[in-house]
Amino acid sequence: MDRRSTLTGPLLIVNPKAYLGGGETLRLARLTDELAGQFGITTIFTAQHVDLRMIAEATEHLVVTAQHMDPLVPGRGMGRILPEGLVEAGVGAVVLNHAEHPLTLDELDRTIARARATGLATIVCADSDAQCRAVATLGPDVMICEPTSAIGTGRMDAGDYVERTTRIVKEVDANILVIQAAGVSTGEDVARVLAQGADGSGGTSGILQHPDHRRILSDMYTALRTAKP
Amino acid sequence: MDRRSTLTGPLLIVNPKAYLGGGETLRLARLTDELAGQFGITTIFTAQHVDLRMIAEATEHLVVTAQHMDPLVPGRGMGRILPEGLVEAGVGAVVLNHAEHPLTLDELDRTIARARATGLATIVCADSDAQCRAVATLGPDVMICEPTSAIGTGRMDAGDYVERTTRIVKEVDANILVIQAAGVSTGEDVARVLAQGADGSGGTSGILQHPDHRRILSDMYTALRTAKP
Amino acid sequence: MDRRSTLTGPLLIVNPKAYLGGGETLRLARLTDELAGQFGITTIFTAQHVDLRMIAEATEHLVVTAQHMDPLVPGRGMGRILPEGLVEAGVGAVVLNHAEHPLTLDELDRTIARARATGLATIVCADSDAQCRAVATLGPDVMICEPTSAIGTGRMDAGDYVERTTRIVKEVDANILVIQAAGVSTGEDVARVLAQGADGSGGTSGILQHPDHRRILSDMYTALRTAKP
Amino acid sequence: MDRRSTLTGPLLIVNPKAYLGGGETLRLARLTDELAGQFGITTIFTAQHVDLRMIAEATEHLVVTAQHMDPLVPGRGMGRILPEGLVEAGVGAVVLNHAEHPLTLDELDRTIARARATGLATIVCADSDAQCRAVATLGPDVMICEPTSAIGTGRMDAGDYVERTTRIVKEVDANILVIQAAGVSTGEDVARVLAQGADGSGGTSGILQHPDHRRILSDMYTALRTAKP
Repeated sequence: MDRRSTLTGPLLIVNPKAYLGGGETLRLARLTDELAGQFGITTIFTAQHVDLRMIAEATEHLVVTAQHMDPLVPGRGMGRILPEGLVEAGVGAVVLNHAEHPLTLDELDRTIARARATGLATIVCADSDAQCRAVATLGPDVMICEPTSAIGTGRMDAGDYVERTTRIVKEVDANILVIQAAGVSTGEDVARVLAQGADGSGGTSGILQHPDHRRILSDMYTALRTAKP
Repeated sequence: MDRRSTLTGPLLIVNPKAYLGGGETLRLARLTDELAGQFGITTIFTAQHVDLRMIAEATEHLVVTAQHMDPLVPGRGMGRILPEGLVEAGVGAVVLNHAEHPLTLDELDRTIARARATGLATIVCADSDAQCRAVATLGPDVMICEPTSAIGTGRMDAGDYVERTTRIVKEVDANILVIQAAGVSTGEDVARVLAQGADGSGGTSGILQHPDHRRILSDMYTALRTAKP
Repeated sequence: MDRRSTLTGPLLIVNPKAYLGGGETLRLARLTDELAGQFGITTIFTAQHVDLRMIAEATEHLVVTAQHMDPLVPGRGMGRILPEGLVEAGVGAVVLNHAEHPLTLDELDRTIARARATGLATIVCADSDAQCRAVATLGPDVMICEPTSAIGTGRMDAGDYVERTTRIVKEVDANILVIQAAGVSTGEDVARVLAQGADGSGGTSGILQHPDHRRILSDMYTALRTAKP
Repeated sequence: MDRRSTLTGPLLIVNPKAYLGGGETLRLARLTDELAGQFGITTIFTAQHVDLRMIAEATEHLVVTAQHMDPLVPGRGMGRILPEGLVEAGVGAVVLNHAEHPLTLDELDRTIARARATGLATIVCADSDAQCRAVATLGPDVMICEPTSAIGTGRMDAGDYVERTTRIVKEVDANILVIQAAGVSTGEDVARVLAQGADGSGGTSGILQHPDHRRILSDMYTALRTAKP
């Protein structure tokens, strides 16, 4: 299956960053896969590079997603992540320019080009209004708009960040799917950002720190399914 | 098996960098594994992160080695490589500070500390005499001394780089195993650097670009076995 | 004098990078200043940070320009360049994101914001079409469109790079002045890029390596004055 | 005067980082210069690059010191700091590898080599025991040992960090002068670190945030003169 083709909204992103690895990530991936199948919602699941093939082999419904890759072509590049290697392992997408791994504009441009050339979907992060607009012009498949100051806080932006940045992206390129996940930790939060224009949500700490992963994921999926046009 | 315990000289390093990935890396790993078993020589085999678990599962005699990792503890660190995730996948060692992925002294120090805490062997690269001496004081298990200007050239240093830098490392810490691989592309090259004091050799282009991988690896292993005390 | 207010086209940029310093830079600055006054052309003159105040004090007609600055506010930031310090020294503009000092998108955005807050004009470099478009959305005062592969070659792009990237920038924001200087080394080269739509030109090696600085600068200024509307 | 030749202990370092610039830095430099002359103590005074020449011209007794430089040779290197340019401006030394501007081991090695070739003294920062030992092997003129966690706190390390790291450096190379300044904010603090083996002290916030710069500097100089052998 070309998992990339499933990138239609609404979207859930489950992004364990470096909080989990190995068996724990696999358990979360299997649970998410089961629910993704039940709810029929496009689901981006990121993992440590070393775990990506294992997760791709163990799941059916997830867009298995790398947390970074480099604009390498086969050759030199010791310790860097080769796009072709990800594709061969069953990866369908890659997150780029996260606040914890910022890229130069030149790297970002060249890495998006390599993703296109190898068939990987791109999910690119941006912070301020200006960065959201600039990234949108590069034509990624998905964007994560996230004010850096809110990452990991469990608090949502009090102002109109969600509506404003979603609109900015759509004005540049209406085909880009926008994920708003900063501070999202409940199904209600997911419903709210969808009501404010986002195509998807999800997160890291809001899911991982919940005592019942099945429950929080089901709540989020329910909100996404309800919003589905 | 704790594969790290096998880090005794003489050593062969097979380092495909980003030249190969997926099935091609697996084929080379299986061939190397077969010969490593036959010759009984400690063998460091590096791979793209996404391929490490597959190689660890498919081989018996290799020290499966990551080409980089970060000094992360579980938590944030989107797109960075978590040491615990490598260990759980069967990785036994990590290369750090390669010329294609240089680290700040602070990162190098903290990453070596994380490797020790998680049981990974460290293989640290250094270039000039001064860098070889400085890295040796950090107490890595293995060092790769390599003049940057010679990487990938297929030409060996005409002067006394091999003898000089090996001696510098051993004077600081006689327990560090020294790999000299710059410009090495034949069994004779391997024999020569061992005669000049090195504990190991191998490489990237010298092996990958040889038309017959079994033959070049066998030549190198023969040189290493002959030199074995 | 608020030298920034002089940023109207046509523009000459004289950019000695790290080829010169101290007295040699001062001589070139004085010569350029004399000609800038004679020809009445807006002239961006960059220098090593340590020389900026001296050049601002010794010249009248130049937009004295830093080759980089950081998005610092007064406080920590050992070894980084503070915007307020540049302003106080008489600097009027700053070049950002040059291929030899690329910035993350986040740094670029924040540094442009700091430049605005402190009254410095921004001159931002970009390479590919996509990068030119993305940078233009950030609203710099001036852009240098330059295909990295042509820097320092003395050869101009054979294709339509100049026309194409100038048009891309102007479509996003018609107020941005576009400098095209890659491979420019004669007055004819300057005339050609102006005819292709650029607002300015100039360079590094094309000027510095010319045996007669007065002559090459006069040739370039003549081309700029001729084109002046 | 070759100001570098004055680098004999005891030493005071006055390091305004990016807290000050322009006229404020000049005032502090003049005050420090006056006291440095009176007390006859070697004094390292750092400043923003743009202010270095002005300070060198306005003072007599200070080792005017850059907060960073790059391993450039004259040529390309847009936005990077050229060693020769610093020397020509009257700079006598450079701080490298500060926690706010960490360098790769390779950069640090090459930049120290450039400093030697151009006659600049090197003042290199290090954090952990292992980093202090590694940096000492590179042969800088002066080291600043500083546990990152204490920078800017106004609190001194409760344990034996000062004695231990000073001893580690001296064991590697007894000629390196060791500055211990973390958390130092009074003359008594300076006396204490000297009693614990350091060759110098000083700082940033401990001096800048004191309401009376003349008084805090005089207190520190008195402590240094008292300790002078």
